[in-house]
Amino acid sequence: MPDDDGVSSALNMPLGPGGEFDLVRTMLARWGALAHGVGDDAAVLAVPEGERLVVSTDTSVEQVHFRREWLSAEEIGYRATMAALSDVAAMGATPLGFLVALSLPARWIPAVPALADGIGDAARLAETTILGGDVTQGEALGITVTVLGSSARPVPRNGARPGDRLFVTGVLGGPAAALRDLQGGRTPPGTLRERFARPRARLREARWLAAHGARAMIDVSDGLASELRHLATASNVALSLDVARVPVMPGCTLEDAISGGEEYEIVAALPGAIDPSAFVRAFGVSLSEIGIVDAAGIPSVTAYRTVREARVDLGTGHDHFRS
Amino acid sequence: MPDDDGVSSALNMPLGPGGEFDLVRTMLARWGALAHGVGDDAAVLAVPEGERLVVSTDTSVEQVHFRREWLSAEEIGYRATMAALSDVAAMGATPLGFLVALSLPARWIPAVPALADGIGDAARLAETTILGGDVTQGEALGITVTVLGSSARPVPRNGARPGDRLFVTGVLGGPAAALRDLQGGRTPPGTLRERFARPRARLREARWLAAHGARAMIDVSDGLASELRHLATASNVALSLDVARVPVMPGCTLEDAISGGEEYEIVAALPGAIDPSAFVRAFGVSLSEIGIVDAAGIPSVTAYRTVREARVDLGTGHDHFRS
Repeated sequence: MPDDDGVSSALNMPLGPGGEFDLVRTMLARWGALAHGVGDDAAVLAVPEGERLVVSTDTSVEQVHFRREWLSAEEIGYRATMAALSDVAAMGATPLGFLVALSLPARWIPAVPALADGIGDAARLAETTILGGDVTQGEALGITVTVLGSSARPVPRNGARPGDRLFVTGVLGGPAAALRDLQGGRTPPGTLRERFARPRARLREARWLAAHGARAMIDVSDGLASELRHLATASNVALSLDVARVPVMPGCTLEDAISGGEEYEIVAALPGAIDPSAFVRAFGVSLSEIGIVDAAGIPSVTAYRTVREARVDLGTGHDHFRS
Repeated sequence: MPDDDGVSSALNMPLGPGGEFDLVRTMLARWGALAHGVGDDAAVLAVPEGERLVVSTDTSVEQVHFRREWLSAEEIGYRATMAALSDVAAMGATPLGFLVALSLPARWIPAVPALADGIGDAARLAETTILGGDVTQGEALGITVTVLGSSARPVPRNGARPGDRLFVTGVLGGPAAALRDLQGGRTPPGTLRERFARPRARLREARWLAAHGARAMIDVSDGLASELRHLATASNVALSLDVARVPVMPGCTLEDAISGGEEYEIVAALPGAIDPSAFVRAFGVSLSEIGIVDAAGIPSVTAYRTVREARVDLGTGHDHFRS
């Protein structure tokens, strides 16, 4: 039953008769070859030999994670899928495919083709496929995406050790600044809106970091400060963040960059020096060294600023991140 | 990083600080050792060598799949999980674990420990573990369970061939009869209510059928008649169902048994004779031969009754299943 791409040859079997499958058919028609194995009780796939499976699930809900007036249906589908892919990126893994569970109010049914297009677009950019899913009625639009991936050496959150350098991909603050505009009824500048509406999971970038020795990684879904605390807690280490080196997107505040979520950039702890210019050449995305792992023992995150080459500690409280 | 049970040794890492994780902590406390690898961006696990991965996702939504007044919170969590496990059973696979995405209205927060207990109970009965999940706000309770499993030879829907015999596990009709009572404001008899509230995914039973040569299987989530049509369509064959041999649960009608859904029994097509008594001895569950695969070519399901050892066709229309 295995075929070339590791997916069951029981591909895209005709779905049974019955009107309840019309929505699934609509989505499959939009996805074309991006959908694999849909139609059986479960999708079948192979995990590459010598690799471990990684799996994560992520839900986006209308009025909780987005509002319909802020985003097109296509962007809503895209964004929910990329958010889920980002968790697999954060493990340094390659996606094997994903499943989509849609909870769908009647008013959203006409938007299903656009939602499917956005989900398909994310699949295409991530070079992966849609393995299956479920469609149910619901009072609010809910999109639960479960991503499977594999890696010979998944990178956890808990591997940071004293002396490791801390890096972050990309520039931060765009989603928070865009969200402020949207919540205030203003139209955000295009570059900021793009960061909010069309995030990119850093899949290839994270694999590069893993290949260059990253021993702890996490994606910036809750905000840089929060993610550093998660990393410190999981690894049981004290971290220091140089706020002067946080890459702030033009048009955004330092606060946007440090506390804003839904960035889907990657924070990595590496034991040695790496050359950010090679990273930039490979991906057209910046890589910034933003801090260091100080000591093992008591999890903490301290903010500091380098002032005339001397470190000035700003403390560990959340407010200090905002100074 | 691999350890004995194939799950990452990065097990149950402390979750980061922050009140948003309280619900996750509550659930992890109820699950204890049933939860593995929760706390990283993604769970890491190994697929047994030589086996293929199977994966399926299934959502249960309040007011769509159940009503709160019909079931305890524990039963709601249990039932949503068993329904999802049933799809992996239908592939003849062994579960490797599952992820739970909860969409949670504020009024459901006090019930989280009971929901978690039900989910945990299903995990324990299925001899599997909880790999991770996601908790979001929502307007209605939604439980999306994504189950991973593995098998050296997953059994698809599309493998039925002319001459195969059709079998079904268990006795049918209980959930439909219980639902009729609940919808009518009556209390269903205990045995029927149990079939509705506490279904069992036929995991071991389906593996037995796979090991005894089943080449197509499907679980009865939409009703026996519907599932036979799915099987006929996927396999591109004409099936015949002997309505006189459908195992009807005491207290239920033939219509309940043929059209009622959420049974989570398994329909299997096997090329040769098997001994149902060995199955009954192994599992304490009946196994009934209910029909045959007649011919390849045009997918259909014909109902018939054996009258004085002669076959009397009842036709292929849906109404004939009800006669």
